[in-house]
Amino acid sequence: MVDLAALIADIAVAMAAQEERGQVASYIPELAKIDPAHFGIAIATADGRLLAGGDADTAFSIQSISKVFALTLALGKVGDQLWDRVGREPSGNAFNSIVQLEQEHGIPRNPFINAGAIVVSDVNLGGHQPRVAIGEMLRFVRYLTGDDSIAINEDVAASETGTGFRNMALANYMRAFGNLRHPVDLVLGTYFHQCAIEMSCRQLALAGRYLMLDGRHPDGGRVVSPGRARRINALMLTCGHYDASGDFAFRVGIPGKSGVGGGILAIVPGRASIAVWSPGLNDNGNSQLGTQALELLARRTGWSVFSPPEEGD
Amino acid sequence: MVDLAALIADIAVAMAAQEERGQVASYIPELAKIDPAHFGIAIATADGRLLAGGDADTAFSIQSISKVFALTLALGKVGDQLWDRVGREPSGNAFNSIVQLEQEHGIPRNPFINAGAIVVSDVNLGGHQPRVAIGEMLRFVRYLTGDDSIAINEDVAASETGTGFRNMALANYMRAFGNLRHPVDLVLGTYFHQCAIEMSCRQLALAGRYLMLDGRHPDGGRVVSPGRARRINALMLTCGHYDASGDFAFRVGIPGKSGVGGGILAIVPGRASIAVWSPGLNDNGNSQLGTQALELLARRTGWSVFSPPEEGD
Amino acid sequence: MVDLAALIADIAVAMAAQEERGQVASYIPELAKIDPAHFGIAIATADGRLLAGGDADTAFSIQSISKVFALTLALGKVGDQLWDRVGREPSGNAFNSIVQLEQEHGIPRNPFINAGAIVVSDVNLGGHQPRVAIGEMLRFVRYLTGDDSIAINEDVAASETGTGFRNMALANYMRAFGNLRHPVDLVLGTYFHQCAIEMSCRQLALAGRYLMLDGRHPDGGRVVSPGRARRINALMLTCGHYDASGDFAFRVGIPGKSGVGGGILAIVPGRASIAVWSPGLNDNGNSQLGTQALELLARRTGWSVFSPPEEGD
Amino acid sequence: MVDLAALIADIAVAMAAQEERGQVASYIPELAKIDPAHFGIAIATADGRLLAGGDADTAFSIQSISKVFALTLALGKVGDQLWDRVGREPSGNAFNSIVQLEQEHGIPRNPFINAGAIVVSDVNLGGHQPRVAIGEMLRFVRYLTGDDSIAINEDVAASETGTGFRNMALANYMRAFGNLRHPVDLVLGTYFHQCAIEMSCRQLALAGRYLMLDGRHPDGGRVVSPGRARRINALMLTCGHYDASGDFAFRVGIPGKSGVGGGILAIVPGRASIAVWSPGLNDNGNSQLGTQALELLARRTGWSVFSPPEEGD
Repeated sequence: MVDLAALIADIAVAMAAQEERGQVASYIPELAKIDPAHFGIAIATADGRLLAGGDADTAFSIQSISKVFALTLALGKVGDQLWDRVGREPSGNAFNSIVQLEQEHGIPRNPFINAGAIVVSDVNLGGHQPRVAIGEMLRFVRYLTGDDSIAINEDVAASETGTGFRNMALANYMRAFGNLRHPVDLVLGTYFHQCAIEMSCRQLALAGRYLMLDGRHPDGGRVVSPGRARRINALMLTCGHYDASGDFAFRVGIPGKSGVGGGILAIVPGRASIAVWSPGLNDNGNSQLGTQALELLARRTGWSVFSPPEEGD
Repeated sequence: MVDLAALIADIAVAMAAQEERGQVASYIPELAKIDPAHFGIAIATADGRLLAGGDADTAFSIQSISKVFALTLALGKVGDQLWDRVGREPSGNAFNSIVQLEQEHGIPRNPFINAGAIVVSDVNLGGHQPRVAIGEMLRFVRYLTGDDSIAINEDVAASETGTGFRNMALANYMRAFGNLRHPVDLVLGTYFHQCAIEMSCRQLALAGRYLMLDGRHPDGGRVVSPGRARRINALMLTCGHYDASGDFAFRVGIPGKSGVGGGILAIVPGRASIAVWSPGLNDNGNSQLGTQALELLARRTGWSVFSPPEEGD
Repeated sequence: MVDLAALIADIAVAMAAQEERGQVASYIPELAKIDPAHFGIAIATADGRLLAGGDADTAFSIQSISKVFALTLALGKVGDQLWDRVGREPSGNAFNSIVQLEQEHGIPRNPFINAGAIVVSDVNLGGHQPRVAIGEMLRFVRYLTGDDSIAINEDVAASETGTGFRNMALANYMRAFGNLRHPVDLVLGTYFHQCAIEMSCRQLALAGRYLMLDGRHPDGGRVVSPGRARRINALMLTCGHYDASGDFAFRVGIPGKSGVGGGILAIVPGRASIAVWSPGLNDNGNSQLGTQALELLARRTGWSVFSPPEEGD
Repeated sequence: MVDLAALIADIAVAMAAQEERGQVASYIPELAKIDPAHFGIAIATADGRLLAGGDADTAFSIQSISKVFALTLALGKVGDQLWDRVGREPSGNAFNSIVQLEQEHGIPRNPFINAGAIVVSDVNLGGHQPRVAIGEMLRFVRYLTGDDSIAINEDVAASETGTGFRNMALANYMRAFGNLRHPVDLVLGTYFHQCAIEMSCRQLALAGRYLMLDGRHPDGGRVVSPGRARRINALMLTCGHYDASGDFAFRVGIPGKSGVGGGILAIVPGRASIAVWSPGLNDNGNSQLGTQALELLARRTGWSVFSPPEEGD
């Protein structure tokens, strides 16, 4: 069996030596200020350990990774009715594509592209004010991690509110098709604040444990049913990396969800909840070093949902 | 642990009682003649058993399931160079879509849509005559199953040759972009014959064992490396059911590849190679009862690549 | 030579007898209230006559016909620089399509689809408040007609403001590409008010005279240069009827611009400025009876830009 | 009134001095050999004159200009039933786009894009062998010009047959939708030979006279009805220059049809049939100098279908 602590140290060293680090997201002004030299990794294991390396304690903007937690909440509220308003298919287009929405009458392809996540935010609003839905989301990630220090970066939220024309276009477009129930500004206010949650790799790895544990909280409580945990994992595998989801499944072989802040949450069912972070993005908008680190980790551990179980132990 | 033999019997009974059986593919005249009442299932397990139910011994046209074996052969010939000519992303469009080819300059999205499989056939031709490539394919599936009776239905192959205008369009279109090296009629001749291979559920489940066994033949030989087996499984999960791949991953949770003949090959890494067959197709062109049977099987066994390993045993 | 007065009477009678009148636009609540039984026609001739029939004095919402006047104003402000921000090609898609905007990076195909007209409104704002730009537009159509009673229906403008999600999507989308200079709500405020101008057929036929007279006002003044008048006519012919522009050119053969209020302004260079109105729309969103009336008029008069000049006199 | 002979001489001098001449079409090997230095122009007037300048007597491959004559023949055979199989709307996409065919179920947008012209060739075959249809086409253009020396360049026809993969894709694709009645190779054989007709500017200007004369042959016979002549002119204006049709209408203002051989036929109804030729193409695939020459000619003569008739005389 692999020595995870040593492996994490190896990976941190290997990543520090990488020269091609991708581009930091520039369309959100607050994110553009982040130093691309950062790299962090943390692994929460099924047997209760937490191993970390690099900048594993530096908080970063989780951005689209929040879509996993938001989806979990929305399924708790409306169950499978959600799928009347959002699809479950990979997108086949860039993450903010509006073309597909036109062709499919305002139903986004999946809950992990922006349009789908905006519908999820509309569900999570549930007739309340944005601050209620945002508070609920914060309480949820604090409960998952057992860490009440997790907070929203208001500067980042404001930064998105000011420049998110494309998301405003998506939201108005879906509203034109009747697929949003609340006013666009309330839905986007909720969405932008959710994306602006800041977590460290350590916190993020802890937050993902319920997806490794078939829906259970490590404290013994049940977050979601086993079936729902599996289905969220399935969505992460097929749709978690925008238009590079197939490539991530091919190269890394485990469910994951990336964010433009440079973080990735990856789940090895029954074994590990992994968080990596490096702000530079590749051409597909996913963390350049984060993807490489996960590929290296998967190869060295044998972790893959596509290999016989015994191989990975 | 589940009693697989009893479960298979249950599934066969449940499927026989289904009234909504979908539509038999009509665009290939020879396939349109098949009786939709058929249902078969076979499971080859990692511990060497073979369990079967229903019409598990009736041969059917494997059609697009052949793409899995053709891909395996092509990777053996040119390795990762294949990915310069074929992508690895889900399609997001219907299985015979030409739109994507135009937008992406003649590079098909993945080897499991028709355009991608035609490029794979071009690779497998390798400068030889179609009969050479077709012979190689037949030998390969006979080797995988240990059954030399497997053959091609020439009527079906001729039936496709006569009506495959859309595939001719795809092939000529890719040729216009320089992504085919051999004359279009030779490539399509190879492709149509490969699709016209006939196998029973029992044979098909045997043929898929190397993907369950991390690339090994049950006789101990190595068909492909462990990494390649995992990556083929990954492609089956993200791209194996055309535009319903995401839904299959969500509902069933294991890699699979369907064909318009009504067959599906599904792989549970380390546990089972499963073949189901029922000729009626759902709106996405995948076997209606076959999909339902696999969903039921997955739920009853707990088999899912997205659940902790111990859960499924 | 045709007796125009008699012909207009014939057309009004023929249209009154039509049973298939199309559907009144329903997406703008205020427009949905209009009685589909209306039909009006007015023709201003180059020799100074004004002939009218049917409900030629009933004011209706000119909607997209306003795009002709707005384009004229914008060209007066920025000249050919406008074409850096708006194309001049037929759309090939429905009038409110956002797909083309994505493929062409926020540059709308022409100034007569909604996206293009929104850019034109952005130009016409010119750093001022909407009421300034709206006032200028009103003064312009009053000058063209010599009729100061022309006004905006504030209920219609408010109706669009409240439901124009699709236009909000288009505007935000173009803003994301940097192709709007003013805040979206100011641009749309201008656009919605311009569309809510009400005119009768009589007034509209008068307003179009400068396009029949190679850019001259009948009072002798020059509205635009001859070349610009011809080019606006060319745009009306190729782009004036959304996705049915080719069909209108084929069947009617003269430049025209339709609006969802059911009006059409059509120009026979050197001969006539024609306004028709009937609220029921055909499948392409153009006035059902208006199109038929113009086709009949063109056939009976021989008016067509595609026939030898002498034929039409 | 303009001195046409002097103007033609001016234009020939101006074009000879142009340095930016575009790119000669490279995808048809035989065409790629043509010297880009050529420029020719010829004008047949309604009063029976024929004026010419530059290389007006050099034969060139008329290519897509043949679509005008083929459409005229097909309308003679099946009349308006043609429009059940071909649309009349501008394409909004590149001239050989297959995307639109998928979205619109095998019905090409208009008879002047390749797909539409292939359907027209299918109509013109009419159950006969290609040589019959090709012979009919040749007789038609010889009749229009009164010049029996017009012939097909077999090398060019063979050159297209060998490399026309994209047209083969289009044809097979439409066949898949049932919109071709004859075998693909017969239809394309007809189409490629029609495109390979060679004519000089002088011959081409003569051939276009019936469209200037409202359907009459200068010898007094009737080629098509006045209405049909106008409608063909309308199609040339809205669809004659692929994705630059709107721009041509905007800048030049008269109906025209271009070919990748570098020729353009342009019609001023009642006044002139104009042929220009220069092999270098602009980014839209239309003759660079040919377009400029027509723009200059239109400006100097005042010829435009969008200006009052008297202005142009």
